[in-house]
Amino acid sequence: MSLALRDSPLVADATRDRIKEHARTIGYIYNRRAASLRTSRSGIVGVVVHDIMNPFFAEILRSIESELDRSRQTFILSNHYDQLEKQRTFIDTLLQLGADGVIMSPAIGTPAEDIRLAEENGLPAVLIARSVEGADVPVFRGDDAYGIGLATNHLISLGHHRIAMIGGTDQTSTGRDRFQGYVAAMQAAGLEVKPHWRLPGPRTKQGGFESAGQFLALKDKPTAAVCWNDLVAIGLMNGIARAGLVPGVDVSVTGYDDLEEAAIATPALTTVWNGQREVGRRAARVLLDRLNGAAMRASQELIKPELHVRQSTGKPVERN
Amino acid sequence: MSLALRDSPLVADATRDRIKEHARTIGYIYNRRAASLRTSRSGIVGVVVHDIMNPFFAEILRSIESELDRSRQTFILSNHYDQLEKQRTFIDTLLQLGADGVIMSPAIGTPAEDIRLAEENGLPAVLIARSVEGADVPVFRGDDAYGIGLATNHLISLGHHRIAMIGGTDQTSTGRDRFQGYVAAMQAAGLEVKPHWRLPGPRTKQGGFESAGQFLALKDKPTAAVCWNDLVAIGLMNGIARAGLVPGVDVSVTGYDDLEEAAIATPALTTVWNGQREVGRRAARVLLDRLNGAAMRASQELIKPELHVRQSTGKPVERN
Repeated sequence: MSLALRDSPLVADATRDRIKEHARTIGYIYNRRAASLRTSRSGIVGVVVHDIMNPFFAEILRSIESELDRSRQTFILSNHYDQLEKQRTFIDTLLQLGADGVIMSPAIGTPAEDIRLAEENGLPAVLIARSVEGADVPVFRGDDAYGIGLATNHLISLGHHRIAMIGGTDQTSTGRDRFQGYVAAMQAAGLEVKPHWRLPGPRTKQGGFESAGQFLALKDKPTAAVCWNDLVAIGLMNGIARAGLVPGVDVSVTGYDDLEEAAIATPALTTVWNGQREVGRRAARVLLDRLNGAAMRASQELIKPELHVRQSTGKPVERN
Repeated sequence: MSLALRDSPLVADATRDRIKEHARTIGYIYNRRAASLRTSRSGIVGVVVHDIMNPFFAEILRSIESELDRSRQTFILSNHYDQLEKQRTFIDTLLQLGADGVIMSPAIGTPAEDIRLAEENGLPAVLIARSVEGADVPVFRGDDAYGIGLATNHLISLGHHRIAMIGGTDQTSTGRDRFQGYVAAMQAAGLEVKPHWRLPGPRTKQGGFESAGQFLALKDKPTAAVCWNDLVAIGLMNGIARAGLVPGVDVSVTGYDDLEEAAIATPALTTVWNGQREVGRRAARVLLDRLNGAAMRASQELIKPELHVRQSTGKPVERN
């Protein structure tokens, strides 16, 4: 019926005229839902990430929002908590709503097929923060292997030889890149990487806080910790302080992301700026350009991270 | 036409039959947007708050989300950053989408008229965290005057007589209640409240951090600070530590909200649990009940706060 009202050439004239007449008779109500059946744009963009409570994603979302605002697009948000089913339900909802596109940080284990299906059903996708092997869409993320290398090399240059890596998972592209970047930097400096120095865990302050005990109990006593992100690093520093040691003096700690609060943490956190504002801005921009008719090329764009040195790192101190 | 396909008694039988026939002829495509024209539910609830980057709102949103999930409702989110225009644009979008309802923490200065208009256009509203004078809708928020009284009385009972109040604004219902609760507790204990002990400011860690210098320079040297929320308190403690003093020893600090990170801050933060999970759960519940046909009564439900005493408060120490 929407075809008829839109004067589609696919509908015979006589049929169209009768339908239009009936529409007038029973009262045709205009609203956006009805209108969006007749145009190619709904004005809605979906955004799905692991968890908006993580300030890393919140900072990305803020820059996506400010780009979308400028183009008067509405923003539907969902967390997938790394549950594929939750992500699929959200994409189905976007398809049913006729959303214009989706910006996603894909859940762990997202098959390329899920993204291909969305695209084939008219929902262009842009990936942020994580990539999906075989997915033929634009990806915007930090260069994690390079970034973690900056943090690790900084500690090595201060004289640290025994460096642990705390928090996070190796199940995402981000996680694999960060772990490999840490290993590569250690090996390039001729340093050993002991498997028990890798303490994976939640990417939260609580996770970092809880791993402090395990870290401090490691029998060969690493003098420094490269943390998966700022949240883990701030939690770890809180846990180290709770144990009576002084983070930044007794133990050196690096973060990752350079969240707003990294600079005001106690001590101020040495961390790696991860370009979250840039990731959000560019992802929104490429999707908006596509909605305005530009072609969207599959490509991986790596934002170059930068080391920000503050007070949480110093020369190594041997603990007894 | 949607009336006809839904077998409305308002449409004459003959008309209905002809329209249905045409619909079959030209191919009727089912999707949710089309379907929602024929039912009273779109499956979408809007949520608008000051700023999702504030973990206080993020914790409320998480519990709203989990309630909505259970009822398979989709969740459209927006920040208004206390800009009335931004809030109005979002409500217009919800009306155009035929959303089922809106949960909002109203922007500063929201007139009751805005909420009445949404209601009259079929968008039931539930308020969280802040009330609007004259708005005839359910409100779920903490009992702020009582809660800040718990924090202030705790400091007074430890022996503090000169207590400052740091951060936040007095332009919201929350802000007014918190300030009055602090003043009332001081006066009930026969203590003076000096106007320059009220340092309003952003409700952020950065805001608390930046007010540390001003707080420590107050000439009559308050021995304790009641902070507007946990973010301000954690920022203030970081600023106090940066100045070479020990928060919890040299200066007592209380927070408000009991965010997840309050317990792992350095030192662990004495704060007031503000029931954000409860606020979110009950607000979502009353809206869902309304969508299922229950009546929605205008009422203000105050969640009773609780004091959680940790290490950031102690006996007063006079500074030189």
